Amino acid sequence: MNINENFLKIQSSYLFSNIAKKVREFSEANPDADIIRLGIGDATRPLPEAVTAAMHRAVDEMGTLDGFRGYPPEYGYDFLLNAISENDFKARGINIGADEIFVSDGAKSDTGNIGDIFSNANTVAVCDPVYPVYVDTNVMCGRAGEAVNGKWSNVIYMPCTAQTGFLPELPAQKADLIYLCFPNNPTGMTIDKKNLQRWVDYANENGSVILYDAAYEAYISDPEIPHSIFELEGAKTCAIEFRSFSKTAGFTGVRCAYTIIPKELTFGGVSLNALWARRQATKFNGVSYITQRGAEAIYSPEGKPQVKAVIDYYKSNASTISEGLKSLGYEVYGGTNSPYVWLKAPDGMASWDFFDLLLNKVQVVGTPGSGFGPSGEGYFRLTGFGSAENTAKALERIARL
Amino acid sequence: MNINENFLKIQSSYLFSNIAKKVREFSEANPDADIIRLGIGDATRPLPEAVTAAMHRAVDEMGTLDGFRGYPPEYGYDFLLNAISENDFKARGINIGADEIFVSDGAKSDTGNIGDIFSNANTVAVCDPVYPVYVDTNVMCGRAGEAVNGKWSNVIYMPCTAQTGFLPELPAQKADLIYLCFPNNPTGMTIDKKNLQRWVDYANENGSVILYDAAYEAYISDPEIPHSIFELEGAKTCAIEFRSFSKTAGFTGVRCAYTIIPKELTFGGVSLNALWARRQATKFNGVSYITQRGAEAIYSPEGKPQVKAVIDYYKSNASTISEGLKSLGYEVYGGTNSPYVWLKAPDGMASWDFFDLLLNKVQVVGTPGSGFGPSGEGYFRLTGFGSAENTAKALERIARL
Repeated sequence: MNINENFLKIQSSYLFSNIAKKVREFSEANPDADIIRLGIGDATRPLPEAVTAAMHRAVDEMGTLDGFRGYPPEYGYDFLLNAISENDFKARGINIGADEIFVSDGAKSDTGNIGDIFSNANTVAVCDPVYPVYVDTNVMCGRAGEAVNGKWSNVIYMPCTAQTGFLPELPAQKADLIYLCFPNNPTGMTIDKKNLQRWVDYANENGSVILYDAAYEAYISDPEIPHSIFELEGAKTCAIEFRSFSKTAGFTGVRCAYTIIPKELTFGGVSLNALWARRQATKFNGVSYITQRGAEAIYSPEGKPQVKAVIDYYKSNASTISEGLKSLGYEVYGGTNSPYVWLKAPDGMASWDFFDLLLNKVQVVGTPGSGFGPSGEGYFRLTGFGSAENTAKALERIARL
Repeated sequence: MNINENFLKIQSSYLFSNIAKKVREFSEANPDADIIRLGIGDATRPLPEAVTAAMHRAVDEMGTLDGFRGYPPEYGYDFLLNAISENDFKARGINIGADEIFVSDGAKSDTGNIGDIFSNANTVAVCDPVYPVYVDTNVMCGRAGEAVNGKWSNVIYMPCTAQTGFLPELPAQKADLIYLCFPNNPTGMTIDKKNLQRWVDYANENGSVILYDAAYEAYISDPEIPHSIFELEGAKTCAIEFRSFSKTAGFTGVRCAYTIIPKELTFGGVSLNALWARRQATKFNGVSYITQRGAEAIYSPEGKPQVKAVIDYYKSNASTISEGLKSLGYEVYGGTNSPYVWLKAPDGMASWDFFDLLLNKVQVVGTPGSGFGPSGEGYFRLTGFGSAENTAKALERIARL
């Protein structure tokens, strides 16, 4: 028996594990320290009441003979598929049918597993800095090639730096699979329709597929910024979109997301919608009925304002960080239309040095930008997912630095 | 961009979809027909009260600031890992630690995704008949090779027929990855320690890995039959075991399962436990807190007898089918220590012909054995997952045939 040798190529530890280790060590050495964690992108506010009420009802149903539901439909219950289609798409003038939506247990699962339906010979393009899952999953299946000087031989890196306005530039080489994430993790930057249209046109001209991660779309308030790539002309023939309830309604601990694959998305007569349907029917067995009823409640008349209140809370924190740092003279990006704030470490410091400084001097934990890729070096990510009190307190502490 | 061409090799429709289509067509032509479905292996009894009570408490927690939980630990909460380790293993004298258990959303996901950590050059051995997911997931990644006369070129088929006592025989060729499922789906047959030991010894001698699907272990009452492959000498250096709460506690609609990879299971110094940990941390984000609290309750003093009552109910149905058919002169296998009954279609009929006969003449739906592999031809699967009333009624109808 032989293992998949590609697994040995990946670094064995993960960015957030390294952070956790450093924080743990500091805590052990300083047991009384009041550490404020603004590093990880995890929800902290309670589930909206409409969601918990719906889940209670669903639990009760599952405890009765008539209300019990066995295996869920592999792609989601109609009640949730229809709610998504109506509220997230038709309400914005986008025609996405229920049979173009695949409900799942998470956008991480979907962005990781989507590679199954593509040949390993494809060339992959990613932004730099980037959410590590896009790269690591391609390494695991061999599509990324070999590591050469800290980069993968079959991956095109698209630097997103101050020079490019933190947007990727169209690659000079032909890219087959292009991962884009807007509002961006980690930079918090957004893309407007005109710029995104260039990517759609590139993909259609080159026969590429855009893997569009819109997990943070709920944080967009600027009307010029598209919530979905399918707002763009021609996107249905070149794009797959990933959505998540994690950051929308605090579902990080509940696990529900969905992926859109339009019926028009075909290559050589083969429908990617049909390939993904086959993948999910074979290697996945659907999402809990209780979870799906909770997700449906997000779209209810009671649920909508409750969800909005949570998002506004996190956005207000992001704004506190962003405005506060600006007033202290930091170079700051993101933080509006996004829960993420991307800042330049002061005085040309390296990302991990700034991490250590914040942890050791003022007990604030963030995420070193270099953990997201070479172009993240010298940058740092803070998030709006803390409490308002701790966020304000963290800013006061940083001001003391 | 190129798709994964292996996907095109698989038949586009799935056994249970074909059955659903035939039943739908019959229903449409005979709208008043009272159809009894004993075909699919899905739970029908309500969730145990201890489970729903635990889930209600967890939903309430998630609705409070202090009780809210974000991203779950990728491999499961300690409370569930410890409950599994204690109750399913240590109580049986098997030492499986919490760090050898990976909680997931389903055994279908795990048996499908486990292939990620193995080289595609491995040779696969499966029983025939077999749960289709084992084969299809290997086809999708290219490991199964090419289809030649209805079989895959890189798959070793191990016939399980009346001649072999429905147990597989050790393959003459060297098999790298060996899928075994006991109590078996679809035949309902079990394996005793002496026979299973031969497989463990074979795997250790040949450097093979046994992928042991024990999803139906809760149906075992015979003390001679092992619940876990880790009851066998040497299994920790050659086996991975898949468990599920689906058929144990009716979690088909709730989605929770787990996989055991012992720390001792290494190849060339590489730990499969570590590879799977990496796979799950990268392409999966854990199971809902609410679901895991529900699963934990299965092991509580209140939960245990409630779960046993559900299993006894299904087992009683299986026994009704098995004993009833025997008294009618059918050749019948399984049905004890298993929810599945495997019967030979009468008069040398083909599986699908018997399916049509049962549907058209007495409106009983079962599963054609040929849908599970060539050696299933002429056989038929019925399950104990219906109601006791319908099961008894179905037997009366079959007696009229």
